[in-house]
Amino acid sequence: MPITGENLIGAAARRGEGESFRAVEAATGNSLEPAFASATAADVERACALAAEAFDTYRETSLDDRARFLEAVADAIVAIGDELIVRCMAESGLPRARLEGERGRTVGQLKMFAGVVRDGGFLEARVDPAQPERKPLPRPDLRLRQIAVGPVAVFGASNFPLAFSVAGGDTASALAAGCPVVAKAHPAHPGTSELVGRAVQAAVKQCGLPEGVFSLLMDSGISVGQALVADPRIAAVGFTGSRRGGVALMQAAASRPVPIPVYAEMSSVNPVVLLPAALEARGRDIGRAFVGSLTLGSGQFCTNPGLILAVEGAGLDGFLEAASAALTETQAATMLTPGIHKAYCAGVAALESNPAVTTLARGLAGGTHQGQAALFATTAEAFLADHALAEEVFGAASLVVRCPDLATIRAVLERLEGQLTAALHLDEADHDAARALLPVLERRVGRILVNGFGTGVEVGHAMVHGGPYPATSDGRTTSVGSLAIHRFLRPVSYQDLPASLLPAALRDDNPLKLWRRQDGKLAAPSA
Amino acid sequence: MPITGENLIGAAARRGEGESFRAVEAATGNSLEPAFASATAADVERACALAAEAFDTYRETSLDDRARFLEAVADAIVAIGDELIVRCMAESGLPRARLEGERGRTVGQLKMFAGVVRDGGFLEARVDPAQPERKPLPRPDLRLRQIAVGPVAVFGASNFPLAFSVAGGDTASALAAGCPVVAKAHPAHPGTSELVGRAVQAAVKQCGLPEGVFSLLMDSGISVGQALVADPRIAAVGFTGSRRGGVALMQAAASRPVPIPVYAEMSSVNPVVLLPAALEARGRDIGRAFVGSLTLGSGQFCTNPGLILAVEGAGLDGFLEAASAALTETQAATMLTPGIHKAYCAGVAALESNPAVTTLARGLAGGTHQGQAALFATTAEAFLADHALAEEVFGAASLVVRCPDLATIRAVLERLEGQLTAALHLDEADHDAARALLPVLERRVGRILVNGFGTGVEVGHAMVHGGPYPATSDGRTTSVGSLAIHRFLRPVSYQDLPASLLPAALRDDNPLKLWRRQDGKLAAPSA
Repeated sequence: MPITGENLIGAAARRGEGESFRAVEAATGNSLEPAFASATAADVERACALAAEAFDTYRETSLDDRARFLEAVADAIVAIGDELIVRCMAESGLPRARLEGERGRTVGQLKMFAGVVRDGGFLEARVDPAQPERKPLPRPDLRLRQIAVGPVAVFGASNFPLAFSVAGGDTASALAAGCPVVAKAHPAHPGTSELVGRAVQAAVKQCGLPEGVFSLLMDSGISVGQALVADPRIAAVGFTGSRRGGVALMQAAASRPVPIPVYAEMSSVNPVVLLPAALEARGRDIGRAFVGSLTLGSGQFCTNPGLILAVEGAGLDGFLEAASAALTETQAATMLTPGIHKAYCAGVAALESNPAVTTLARGLAGGTHQGQAALFATTAEAFLADHALAEEVFGAASLVVRCPDLATIRAVLERLEGQLTAALHLDEADHDAARALLPVLERRVGRILVNGFGTGVEVGHAMVHGGPYPATSDGRTTSVGSLAIHRFLRPVSYQDLPASLLPAALRDDNPLKLWRRQDGKLAAPSA
Repeated sequence: MPITGENLIGAAARRGEGESFRAVEAATGNSLEPAFASATAADVERACALAAEAFDTYRETSLDDRARFLEAVADAIVAIGDELIVRCMAESGLPRARLEGERGRTVGQLKMFAGVVRDGGFLEARVDPAQPERKPLPRPDLRLRQIAVGPVAVFGASNFPLAFSVAGGDTASALAAGCPVVAKAHPAHPGTSELVGRAVQAAVKQCGLPEGVFSLLMDSGISVGQALVADPRIAAVGFTGSRRGGVALMQAAASRPVPIPVYAEMSSVNPVVLLPAALEARGRDIGRAFVGSLTLGSGQFCTNPGLILAVEGAGLDGFLEAASAALTETQAATMLTPGIHKAYCAGVAALESNPAVTTLARGLAGGTHQGQAALFATTAEAFLADHALAEEVFGAASLVVRCPDLATIRAVLERLEGQLTAALHLDEADHDAARALLPVLERRVGRILVNGFGTGVEVGHAMVHGGPYPATSDGRTTSVGSLAIHRFLRPVSYQDLPASLLPAALRDDNPLKLWRRQDGKLAAPSA
């Protein structure tokens, strides 16, 4: 499959007439072939028109047809073969093993959503039968299902060029819900995006779906994204990226004549609390495991452990010694883009030059585009006095906050902004301390984990990859896991509809064999 | 129970130090005793501080305790007795039978939510058990539940002084979710608000809950509401009222340092489509039934049928004759407030003076504060050319759009903004026509009904009282029915937590006897 640099608009591939750009090889900074051309306003218009045209047909595809389409997308991505991995390695600087794993995750995610679609639980079908004899007024027949919200704009993320990009979690959950997708390729991996986009396009054709179910637009800048979010046919937005980018999308969406939801996953320092008994028993082991999580993928994960909270003492000293020793031996690794590398260096330099911050250790130095890991420490007093210390440095840098006691840890947590994850390291003797912190964490984070680190986000049914603002734009949702489908649904109620006009999900004979709420109570499909 | 004019802040009642105001008797325009005093910024601060303080305790009350609290609120409202009805009649101008019915609905709504809480389905408990042997990486133990979002600000609506006010649907669903509520009384019925507020306050005390679970603030203007929405401890907003008011709240909430969701139910003209066979068979009957719905409660319902679409012909002529005849005999009725009456008169005058609009009939004239029903007609061409004709006139006024054919009806529907409801009047021979319109309606409204009118919103499990903007601020939700609880919840995921730290909803022994999703599949509590 040759990479042509074209936009994929419905079934067509056409060269944009906007600014030309090239992908950059992350390891060298060299330009890669071919040239891509940014989409124009007319391309955005055409993609959105096709998406709107496809919407009524696509959202009413049978559950099985829609599931098979998601599986066809997964198969088509696998069928690209090694070309996808090779291109993605060049564009992202990420190693082969990681990208093969990420491809598996992306494909598995599409298949999980196929299962979610077949299950039909996401339709939340409800039936309140008529009560014609009720006094003083008869009760009408009322039935409810969830329907797709409309065409969705998806912005690819740079740090997961497969799993959070063109056919990543946002696209998979939107397509599962019945929403056409207009994806905006991330300019850091346009070739990877095109390859995956062509796979989706092929699956649309193979499954006989309306061409507007999927389009992919290229842009070196921000005008295509702005036009997409402003388009009246776009009903929701999925985004993973920087806080600045996410907030700009939120503001653009809120100021439309018809505001729409933006699901932006933005920034998080993912506090890790080391409780005293665990620290004393195995502080050194935790220190080594922490460095493994911190430096994984050059620290370029939303769930990277950027903040450590612990009470001073011998246990913490052991943790810091082991973590510093491990970090010092960590190889530098290529970062995703020169821009991300530059921002990382600036963030690290700011911490290094902060008089309230001590540099505990640095990893091995590397090449021009490689991130050098860093571990810093400060006091709770300094941390509470300086908001800048709570900001994310995207990459393998973390800050340890030395606290005089558990009450101070709690006070620091109460001052943090919304986060994706929080981790507690604890032993049995720490349970009371943990119990006191859990309510604080529940109010602030989307996922609480024990004796582990937030990196490695399981794609499952009980996953929340979300959290209160500014971790995300909307703490009521998740962007990973099966619950993500609910972002792209809205309920519609049907009152007194004749049987022949009812959607299949709501008919008396329940042809979709759904679990439904009958007068509020869950009822099995055989009932 | 004497009405004192005080604010209810937690367990206390204290006189505000803001501007003084009095309720106005709707029928006469006379002031009612006693004087109310607006809350100050300090009162808002105190109510929000108490709510935040109560939050962690209240959200973890057992399902049964929380259900019993909702039932205690219902009982306390009933216990106020006739004083509530008498005061509410004076303040709202609504007749006794309507208000007794509305009280029943309010109490029934609280009890329905008690049932929803006991059912526990709203917790959406999910368990993905660990798979320690999985390759290449073991799977962690992941569990998910929904938790309350935080303290909620509720704005009472003028048109349902009980069911959409201090202890109405927003308050009931927020309390059911586990959110403390700070309510802002509507200045049109402050006495009614205080009586109901004192009932809630008494229930909080009786159930031994933290006092901050509920507060009620008075204000003659908008500053208390603005301060509430800006308060960092408020996590969500419930509102029913005008589009202007709702949009102002949306903008205020979106521009906070931490944006929060606003659930505003705003405006709707609730299109009614009369299909040809039904119109021919029983146009006159439909006309009479339509006038009954239009003039119910002086037309002061969000779901009032303000727009009629039909194809020209003898059937439509019969409908119009019967509707005009019925309307002409309709008594004028007192409107909720002098301001609402004035706005109604202005809206009617604008239609009367529009050269493209014909006045078909007016109801009987009435007193100074009474709304006189009105029925207008225009052509599809004129309607499509003038956006102002699609705007809601709150009260018993409706506009018939004469269409040359079904395609034009579809075109008009495609041009409408989001609506709460749409009704289709149809016979068997109209099914194909209806089938062609249903997708359009699904994209535009929250509830589709057949051979009826949208007034009379059933409080049930399959009800959607919502719809795309500007019917509401957030078309993914409903403000009536059990699904309304989901507005005030967000998911939290727990990874590898020791059993003794897990919330009861997620423990292996399932002490709450919940239906849960186990690896994505619904599992009965006995399993």
